[in-house]
Amino acid sequence: MKTNNYSAGILQYIPFFYVIWSDDLLSYSEISVVKNAIEQDDTVTKEDYKYLTQCLDKKNPPSNNELKHWKNTIDNSNVKLVENDTYPLSTFSQKMICHHFAACPFNTHLKEIEINLGIQPNHYNHLFEIEIDKEITSNFYDSNEIDTILKGAQTKVIDEFRKDLKNPIFNWQTRRTKEAFRTHVLKQIAFLAEKGYGAMAFPEVYGGTENMPGYAAIFENMMFVDGSMAVKFGVQFGLFGGSIQKLGTKKHHDLYLSATGKANLLGSFAMTETGHGSNVRGIKTTATYDEKTDSIVIHTPGKNDNKEYIGNALDSTMASVFAQLIVKGKNQGVHAILVPIRDKNHQLMAGVTIEDNGYKLGLNGVDNGKIWFHQVRVPRENLLNKYGDITPEGNYHSAIENPSKRFFTMLGTLVGGRICVARAGLGGAKKALAIAVKHALKRRQFNDSIKIQEDLLMDYPSHQLRLTPAVASCFVYDVTLTHIMKTYSDPNLVDKRKIETQVAGLKSIITWFANDTIQECREACGGKGYLLENQIADLKGDVDIFTTFEGDNHVLLQLAAKGVLSDFKSEFNSAGFTAVLKLLGARISDKLNTINPAYTNNVDKDHLYNPKFHKHAFNFRTRRLTYTVAMRIRDYVKKGIPAYQAFLKVQTHLLALGKAYSIELAYTIFDDFTATISDDKNKALFKKLGVLYALHHLRKDATWYLEQGYINGTKSKAIRQRVERLSTELRPHIGVLVDGFGIPEHCLEAPIAN
Amino acid sequence: MKTNNYSAGILQYIPFFYVIWSDDLLSYSEISVVKNAIEQDDTVTKEDYKYLTQCLDKKNPPSNNELKHWKNTIDNSNVKLVENDTYPLSTFSQKMICHHFAACPFNTHLKEIEINLGIQPNHYNHLFEIEIDKEITSNFYDSNEIDTILKGAQTKVIDEFRKDLKNPIFNWQTRRTKEAFRTHVLKQIAFLAEKGYGAMAFPEVYGGTENMPGYAAIFENMMFVDGSMAVKFGVQFGLFGGSIQKLGTKKHHDLYLSATGKANLLGSFAMTETGHGSNVRGIKTTATYDEKTDSIVIHTPGKNDNKEYIGNALDSTMASVFAQLIVKGKNQGVHAILVPIRDKNHQLMAGVTIEDNGYKLGLNGVDNGKIWFHQVRVPRENLLNKYGDITPEGNYHSAIENPSKRFFTMLGTLVGGRICVARAGLGGAKKALAIAVKHALKRRQFNDSIKIQEDLLMDYPSHQLRLTPAVASCFVYDVTLTHIMKTYSDPNLVDKRKIETQVAGLKSIITWFANDTIQECREACGGKGYLLENQIADLKGDVDIFTTFEGDNHVLLQLAAKGVLSDFKSEFNSAGFTAVLKLLGARISDKLNTINPAYTNNVDKDHLYNPKFHKHAFNFRTRRLTYTVAMRIRDYVKKGIPAYQAFLKVQTHLLALGKAYSIELAYTIFDDFTATISDDKNKALFKKLGVLYALHHLRKDATWYLEQGYINGTKSKAIRQRVERLSTELRPHIGVLVDGFGIPEHCLEAPIAN
Repeated sequence: MKTNNYSAGILQYIPFFYVIWSDDLLSYSEISVVKNAIEQDDTVTKEDYKYLTQCLDKKNPPSNNELKHWKNTIDNSNVKLVENDTYPLSTFSQKMICHHFAACPFNTHLKEIEINLGIQPNHYNHLFEIEIDKEITSNFYDSNEIDTILKGAQTKVIDEFRKDLKNPIFNWQTRRTKEAFRTHVLKQIAFLAEKGYGAMAFPEVYGGTENMPGYAAIFENMMFVDGSMAVKFGVQFGLFGGSIQKLGTKKHHDLYLSATGKANLLGSFAMTETGHGSNVRGIKTTATYDEKTDSIVIHTPGKNDNKEYIGNALDSTMASVFAQLIVKGKNQGVHAILVPIRDKNHQLMAGVTIEDNGYKLGLNGVDNGKIWFHQVRVPRENLLNKYGDITPEGNYHSAIENPSKRFFTMLGTLVGGRICVARAGLGGAKKALAIAVKHALKRRQFNDSIKIQEDLLMDYPSHQLRLTPAVASCFVYDVTLTHIMKTYSDPNLVDKRKIETQVAGLKSIITWFANDTIQECREACGGKGYLLENQIADLKGDVDIFTTFEGDNHVLLQLAAKGVLSDFKSEFNSAGFTAVLKLLGARISDKLNTINPAYTNNVDKDHLYNPKFHKHAFNFRTRRLTYTVAMRIRDYVKKGIPAYQAFLKVQTHLLALGKAYSIELAYTIFDDFTATISDDKNKALFKKLGVLYALHHLRKDATWYLEQGYINGTKSKAIRQRVERLSTELRPHIGVLVDGFGIPEHCLEAPIAN
Repeated sequence: MKTNNYSAGILQYIPFFYVIWSDDLLSYSEISVVKNAIEQDDTVTKEDYKYLTQCLDKKNPPSNNELKHWKNTIDNSNVKLVENDTYPLSTFSQKMICHHFAACPFNTHLKEIEINLGIQPNHYNHLFEIEIDKEITSNFYDSNEIDTILKGAQTKVIDEFRKDLKNPIFNWQTRRTKEAFRTHVLKQIAFLAEKGYGAMAFPEVYGGTENMPGYAAIFENMMFVDGSMAVKFGVQFGLFGGSIQKLGTKKHHDLYLSATGKANLLGSFAMTETGHGSNVRGIKTTATYDEKTDSIVIHTPGKNDNKEYIGNALDSTMASVFAQLIVKGKNQGVHAILVPIRDKNHQLMAGVTIEDNGYKLGLNGVDNGKIWFHQVRVPRENLLNKYGDITPEGNYHSAIENPSKRFFTMLGTLVGGRICVARAGLGGAKKALAIAVKHALKRRQFNDSIKIQEDLLMDYPSHQLRLTPAVASCFVYDVTLTHIMKTYSDPNLVDKRKIETQVAGLKSIITWFANDTIQECREACGGKGYLLENQIADLKGDVDIFTTFEGDNHVLLQLAAKGVLSDFKSEFNSAGFTAVLKLLGARISDKLNTINPAYTNNVDKDHLYNPKFHKHAFNFRTRRLTYTVAMRIRDYVKKGIPAYQAFLKVQTHLLALGKAYSIELAYTIFDDFTATISDDKNKALFKKLGVLYALHHLRKDATWYLEQGYINGTKSKAIRQRVERLSTELRPHIGVLVDGFGIPEHCLEAPIAN
């Protein structure tokens, strides 16, 4: 055993020997590499050599005491390990010698060992009790503060909910067979109902707090656990419960709402039909009032007219069935009727046929099924009669005379569900980003040939560009959806048509964003992202369908565009295209600002980062697209082309308008919000995130802006460069930003995220 | 204004004129087509001619009233439009005249207009309020002929293989547990081996036909059955078998090749490590030659240095292990060694540890696992020694002295696998498109309120735009990959570096294309696309990882870009960035053609459809990006920034270059190919598909072209309109086009496709 007083020749090898032996994984080839180096090292004396080679004898390894001694020598060296040194361990050794000896040149033989054995800081930085210069992520911002800003008014609800998610029932586990998966999800739903979450949006008298914004917030948080759980929850409490609450009246509430909130009454929401996915007005199921028996007969006329994809179909005992209500031989349009579908023994009611939809790309914990009704009779009282009723005399009556308006008023009450779908998509994107970013802050790949340590994925510009604008977008959409839900839930808001337009657009762009982001995260994690255990794969499968359900995005965007076209005033929903056109006549003149040339080529940072520029650019696009699409429709109609066909011809134009409108809306809401943040530090951060969002989107649609002459080529390039630069500027904070999403640690069990 | 009493000469042109003007897409070349026809039309009097030409004045177009009058004339004609007439509009015109005039022969001049302008029923059937005999799909083209063109030299092999796929072993079935799934896939592999497909690429003496192009073709066709089967097949025969064939020598071939081809010897390809996914040169597993025992010791040094994601890991008895070969204390770089990993009883060999990778997003029929080696000893002869050997005296020897060149020569032999991955991705995209298109030709959603029948999804312009450019791209990429594989397999091709660059780029853009397309198909099928039974979901999960394995796309694109930069001549592969820079010095002067202003704003159809324009535009982009990225790198280096860091700084620029190069390459190969098609009808069809591909891609990158001033805003819009119009023009043929993929009926069991 040597004393503390190692010679310089030996001392320089101590860190290497300690690293090599502490892992006990030394193979002969590695030993021979080290031996070779020592042999050729002139700084090693004969006596040093004897000691050093003796320490490389696999059959007679250094004792534990010796190892401890080496470690003490290192720990007491007072030398700092700098991870981003080119040869961190060799440099560390050099510095150690410099402490004790006058001459301490860099030893290339040590470097050879470091290279040939591939020794990296992440191999040994945990072995030494010394100061380490790590610099993986900055702590300038505080993730808790960021999280609190996002949680806003729902902080208390969310914090409690996240605590509840610690229950082992929410632990992640692979469940491959749908039966086992569904059984577990049903248990989770019962647990959540028991805790009061199911009834959250219901009035207090039925066990709730009438807190729809809180409901939406916890709905997003459920995605941190599992998509199937969130969707099943949404079907039971949001769709089924919501239909009773919003389309029914007190008699229905009293009978069913408490039991629904407690999940004692399980229900499904039977709207979509095989033959009619997006076109709800065209559904074929009939609900015929039979005067003789004072009852309503539910019937599926044709083989493709069955209810399709109905969540909770296998577990539920009741369904809110949407059907064409026929009273005295007259079709009064689509109405919802409560239909018992199973008895107390969970046997199907007479006339009801249910079939499992089988396995899906995702959400296999949700029991989707098809439902057929054969002359199923329910009492007249089962009609959810808030907007249309059958009197005891057997006459139809509704306060809303226009059938089209009535239809959209009924559907409008369910718009909250669309906000929740967008929120859930956002939750999925956040979780995927958190995993991908945490992985990129650990994982190293490739390096400069002269460096021993490989670079962190997160330090690659292309990786920053892949993930950072998506992180910024999450902040923008979070704030947007919170705001929209607040507006939607305001009991003073009577005319909900404007918010319907807004939600149609936002749901589309946010669910697409979520899908794209999760895909990017999967690829950014390479093969690791493909393993189920790393939790991105499930998100991919689950979130995928969000672009389709609660309204297909392509259909919704056209709805949004038509809403914009009619300036929220006409009955655009009624398929009354002529009404839209009438309105357009009044404002067909181009009121657009002429483009200011100073804008077109201004590439100054102050200008490019100024929200005034972003808002002007977004608003210009919305108005310009509105105007041009209106002109095109008018021209077609003038030539005698029917309005429906004219709208078909401009379909891609309408989709562009719907997107443009939604992006402008999100950005405007976010920018208004940043102004309300009280502390300057976080306000500046949020402002920067907003700038990145805006420039990222201007960049994505630069073709259009260039075509319009709104920007010139130089400005377009400048915007691209700013997007890259902002992504790099945010690099030190990206870890804190994704922590700011507030995803509970126990929901981030992915091995690559730890 | 003319009266109702049009002359026969004029009347016959009215339907054409109404169609032409209602869309307003008329370019000068199209007007001249119509003018020519009228001039040569003997049935047109002088007076008629005056009126007709007057109606073709773009500067003084017919008034809206005139258009309405035309429309009334058509609507009141009582003539029925028969969509599947060979020339429906000409025939319609003929019938209109027959109503009023005794003589009404078929007018070939009208036919010329109809053909040359590509006027199709779906352009105008909604414009007329007349009875329409609708057709879902046209039989103008023959899907068998199209299929035969694509199959080319491999027709016989592919036809036989497709027949073999009729065996019930290939029937589609949901297999949720990996164990059951893997067992079945293994049976399929054995079946295919038995039929001789496993050995197809091997020399005849080992049971094959040395037909690598045939191997690639059947590999793509396997995707019509199941992704897991294809990948397992690729691992066993392509990777494991390929490594023996290409890195080994006769002794290895004699010992193992026949058994491998028959699947009697199951093997894995152990290259990737947990710590090193894309960076193969940085792998840590060591293979140390031990002179005393004349054996090689395989060892996993650190806990993250295990082999990762190794296909066939649970079934195989041998592995091609890639490791740092250390001979006499010197690291000679990465080499492959055959290592027995299991004995005859399928028990792990001493020192070998294998762990199941568990469930994945897709490909759960493939047994991926992790492998650790603890001092596993194999005979010296197990070194696959074609490019580097250990002599009986224990010295390392290689004919390729430069270690970097040696490394890339070894990897280069495996480039065929990348072509196969791209082919498999393409196969997945084709199948998804076939399902989505067949669904869209059946499924109806929404309608004009006056119509009974809802519209087919495929008749929506947005749906055409979503699917048609993707169908066209499949044709381009099919032809491209066939060509590339032919070149790669040419035994006369010695220097494979150029083709490596090409394959790196093509694999990236084609696998991304496949993912995007499958996603679009899923969404285009709505909720139905989400059900496993409809087979798109599995494709999504399976193809997803193709962007990552056999080279991460981001890494490959940079490899391609570096290849372009060094003009295929330098050692760009060697991470020798300085070599690249040296070469650049010689050609740093801008040799780009100056942009011809006549090009910039030419929106004429003849120009926009001309492959000369497309090639010029693609080539301009590749050269311009090469030049600008080279200049940027040079400027960084001049400032003293290390070359590695300089390359990092231009990373996104390199990615753009890699993509641009690959798209140009694919289009050029396809355009050359169309010239070789012997019959004019199919040649014209393929040419049109090429035009759509080209314009679609120019449209996608219009921002860049606008920034460069290569096109102006008007041209950019014209390109967009042409993409939409071409998608509509191909609408009648889209069913035949996807049938032309030749997917066997028994592989298209998806209910929505039937």
